[in-house]
Amino acid sequence: MSDIRALLFDVFGTVVDWRGGIAREAAPFLARHGIAMDPHVFADAWRARYQPAMQAVRSGARPFARLDTLHRENLDAVLRDAGADPARIPVAELDALNRAWHRLDPWPDSVAGLTRLKSRFVIAPLSNGNVALLLNMAKRAGLPWDAILGAEVAQAYKPQPEAYLRTAEILGLPPSACMMVAAHNDDLAAAGRCGLATAFVARPTEHGPSQTTDLAPAERWDVVATDFNDLADRLGCA
Amino acid sequence: MSDIRALLFDVFGTVVDWRGGIAREAAPFLARHGIAMDPHVFADAWRARYQPAMQAVRSGARPFARLDTLHRENLDAVLRDAGADPARIPVAELDALNRAWHRLDPWPDSVAGLTRLKSRFVIAPLSNGNVALLLNMAKRAGLPWDAILGAEVAQAYKPQPEAYLRTAEILGLPPSACMMVAAHNDDLAAAGRCGLATAFVARPTEHGPSQTTDLAPAERWDVVATDFNDLADRLGCA
Repeated sequence: MSDIRALLFDVFGTVVDWRGGIAREAAPFLARHGIAMDPHVFADAWRARYQPAMQAVRSGARPFARLDTLHRENLDAVLRDAGADPARIPVAELDALNRAWHRLDPWPDSVAGLTRLKSRFVIAPLSNGNVALLLNMAKRAGLPWDAILGAEVAQAYKPQPEAYLRTAEILGLPPSACMMVAAHNDDLAAAGRCGLATAFVARPTEHGPSQTTDLAPAERWDVVATDFNDLADRLGCA
Repeated sequence: MSDIRALLFDVFGTVVDWRGGIAREAAPFLARHGIAMDPHVFADAWRARYQPAMQAVRSGARPFARLDTLHRENLDAVLRDAGADPARIPVAELDALNRAWHRLDPWPDSVAGLTRLKSRFVIAPLSNGNVALLLNMAKRAGLPWDAILGAEVAQAYKPQPEAYLRTAEILGLPPSACMMVAAHNDDLAAAGRCGLATAFVARPTEHGPSQTTDLAPAERWDVVATDFNDLADRLGCA
């Protein structure tokens, strides 16, 4: 544990509240276009298409495409599922809603915790989000990343081993000098299989008030923390 | 000019003093191994192999290799030129000296100027340095980058157009929304041909007290500034 030099963070759900942010931005859009769908249900439906879209890249069925592109394709599909025709909505409006993923709010402890952790470690996202998405999010929210890493830089989507291993290699570090921080047990399991240390931070309302998944650590992760400030305490940060 | 969203910086010479930093770290190494070479001459000789090494990548003669790798190969060559046998020096010592490029000091105005510029623009390196080099340099020196971009992320060395164009594309911006900031007229010329805006900041002692190159702007760049604080003034930053 004393060899850890870099903390690599899952972002959607771990650092920011994607469900609340997407619902907030979708609400006026849905009302404006007369789409009778609860904004949180809309957010869940959009997010439900996230893993299948990346799977087409992981399987090799399509070349690497950044998440902004996948989100935009998925937006059209979700609107069609809701009975709306995206071809009848101005492209600029659809593009603007797609960038709601760039404007998600951090959990209340994220900025303070990251700022403390940055004093002792390299901190960077290891997210499936693309660079522009993560950078715009960080500028707006004040997330103090040292670098913006993840799927687009590694050209591989988590949980493929390449996403973790190439990120460590780009940092010039062995995997054992990197710790993955995530609210998702499957992300930590994949990182751990690549030799990274693991820290679980529960985000029990990521999926709303009746969340049933990832409420507790599923394995013996190296660190289990209640939030980013608790993580900073456990890692000896001032 | 009011459309500029991101400022992209050359680093070696523009943000940091590579010659002084390499000479500082080489001096004890050269003394320890009885190599009779002035540390600044050593720094110049090491740097002289920089462009030819990248040219082998640009020409396609070898696949992309990050700058840490090129610097390490060049270190062996410079030592041989100085009459030393790198095979007789412990690898750990050579690797440590190679990482002197991660420990270069910024010019006196760099951190203050970047901090002001960051309040209004995305700021990122667009350097031929690799991510780990630029990240370690930034952590040590307090360079407040929003992201670490450049040759390794673009997989192309400046002045190839791909280095500039892929960086803008990764940022989700048209080239015209990006401004290249450099102390080197050739870097700005290449960026300008790709549609980026250009800012020249003279660094008249980059190559030592008798520098003859890049003392003045060679073309009508969009902005000409005396240092990064002057650049912040000219770009309307508080």
